[in-house]
Amino acid sequence: MKLTQNQHNYFDKEGYLFFPELFSKEEIQYLADEVPKLYELREEYNFREKGSNAVRTNFAAHLYSKPFAKLARHPRMIKPVEDLLGERLYMHQFKINGKMAFEGDVWQWHQDYGTWVNDDLMPTERAMNVAIFLDEVNEFNGPLLFIPGSHKKGVIKAKHDTATTSYPLWTLDNNLITQLVKRAGGINGGIVSPKGPAGSVIFFHGCLVHSSSINISPFNRISVYLSLCAVSNHIRRFKRKAYIAHRDFTPIKCLPDDCLVKEYKVDLPWENGVPTSAFETSLEELSD
Amino acid sequence: MKLTQNQHNYFDKEGYLFFPELFSKEEIQYLADEVPKLYELREEYNFREKGSNAVRTNFAAHLYSKPFAKLARHPRMIKPVEDLLGERLYMHQFKINGKMAFEGDVWQWHQDYGTWVNDDLMPTERAMNVAIFLDEVNEFNGPLLFIPGSHKKGVIKAKHDTATTSYPLWTLDNNLITQLVKRAGGINGGIVSPKGPAGSVIFFHGCLVHSSSINISPFNRISVYLSLCAVSNHIRRFKRKAYIAHRDFTPIKCLPDDCLVKEYKVDLPWENGVPTSAFETSLEELSD
Repeated sequence: MKLTQNQHNYFDKEGYLFFPELFSKEEIQYLADEVPKLYELREEYNFREKGSNAVRTNFAAHLYSKPFAKLARHPRMIKPVEDLLGERLYMHQFKINGKMAFEGDVWQWHQDYGTWVNDDLMPTERAMNVAIFLDEVNEFNGPLLFIPGSHKKGVIKAKHDTATTSYPLWTLDNNLITQLVKRAGGINGGIVSPKGPAGSVIFFHGCLVHSSSINISPFNRISVYLSLCAVSNHIRRFKRKAYIAHRDFTPIKCLPDDCLVKEYKVDLPWENGVPTSAFETSLEELSD
Repeated sequence: MKLTQNQHNYFDKEGYLFFPELFSKEEIQYLADEVPKLYELREEYNFREKGSNAVRTNFAAHLYSKPFAKLARHPRMIKPVEDLLGERLYMHQFKINGKMAFEGDVWQWHQDYGTWVNDDLMPTERAMNVAIFLDEVNEFNGPLLFIPGSHKKGVIKAKHDTATTSYPLWTLDNNLITQLVKRAGGINGGIVSPKGPAGSVIFFHGCLVHSSSINISPFNRISVYLSLCAVSNHIRRFKRKAYIAHRDFTPIKCLPDDCLVKEYKVDLPWENGVPTSAFETSLEELSD
């Protein structure tokens, strides 16, 4: 899957690319069937919504769940990002975000790279996200909202919000959001929200400003987020636990394109439990 | 403005009617210009969002603000409801709901008639709402969500939610919402959300199940809600204060259609302050 010049240009200008139904129903079913048993686990890597049992974020499933280990090596997820960043990649973060029916809470306006640089000392913006929908995303179940072109602002000053939801986040100021949305077109295109069937995929820039609302609908909105980083741009500090910000900078080797529908062998290093070292953190800066 | 037979049939089946841009830009401007000074008032009738200065609901502006006193007698607001209910109307409740940019909080799934019967002892469902948009309503600023046809269920058992937001509400159970949405078409039309420019109007049944999400966008979403009740169906208890549930059952006399752009005289009985009696409540049932 090689991106066209038009797609490169679009990504450069808007900060994202959207591919409806990039994965088949069968491929998605294989992934979705695995989620309930992962969400059931009483493990630290399952962050639940405030005052609720519903899972907000599951971390690092690619290290202990076979379907997601395969997704983490899927050429349709990895190749376009290699193409955009022009380099081999490692997995910086891997999440299955719930946004469950009636329970899914807000993600305030933020840039992901804000967290990566503030917390993890990731040197440059050469990292980005791939989101894959395990459920249909519609206007009712809290779709991702982007401010197109906002990645051009680079890293924006953020404040650490540890109160609003159960997961701490570097969030942006309302006045700034208002300005960015105005500049991007105001009510005429200043916010966009890619929606589509399960199996759709969004690639988006690490500096693209985004948010998502609560889910008051009866429709779950489970999505998987791969945060892929150019190997040369690996993080320089292990301030966050290793199940959140990974420390293995080995380049990802893709499996064949049919890996979600055929049998392939994958390593599951945390299959029998998360190692103690994954919970150890440090404020020390890595030497190169 | 007489409704067609098709519109009657649609309302009967779906529980609502939507008229995009029923009011002109000039008419809306006249109303919208009045809102900031009403919202500024430190009066009990301005409910603010939890932990915020933003107004969630302003009550009874038609009794102390000239533009809204005219809107409360506007034939485009009143006549279609007289037509649907086949009777003269009185104003049961009058609200200007904020749903302000970044601050507007959720309204959980509910039926308005649930409150009217539980709190006010309104005898039957012969009452309904008219909503008029003072701002554009889009997918980002917390539009009203309806479950089409759900009014056919009649009054549904509700629980009094006094915790979620700053305004107490009789809200419905999640399992029931899931069933109603499924029956109405699930992800294919089980929820609808009329959106459109400022000046658009929605008429909806008092038993139609509805909600609206938070507003995380930089776009205000101010709407006015008239709750109109057939005169013969007036409430039988003054459990709620009179600025919330009105006690004047006099039939509304419409002004001419151009009343928002020309000078007309209107009574403003609360212009110099809300009378003490409006805060007095009683659990006694009225005799007919």
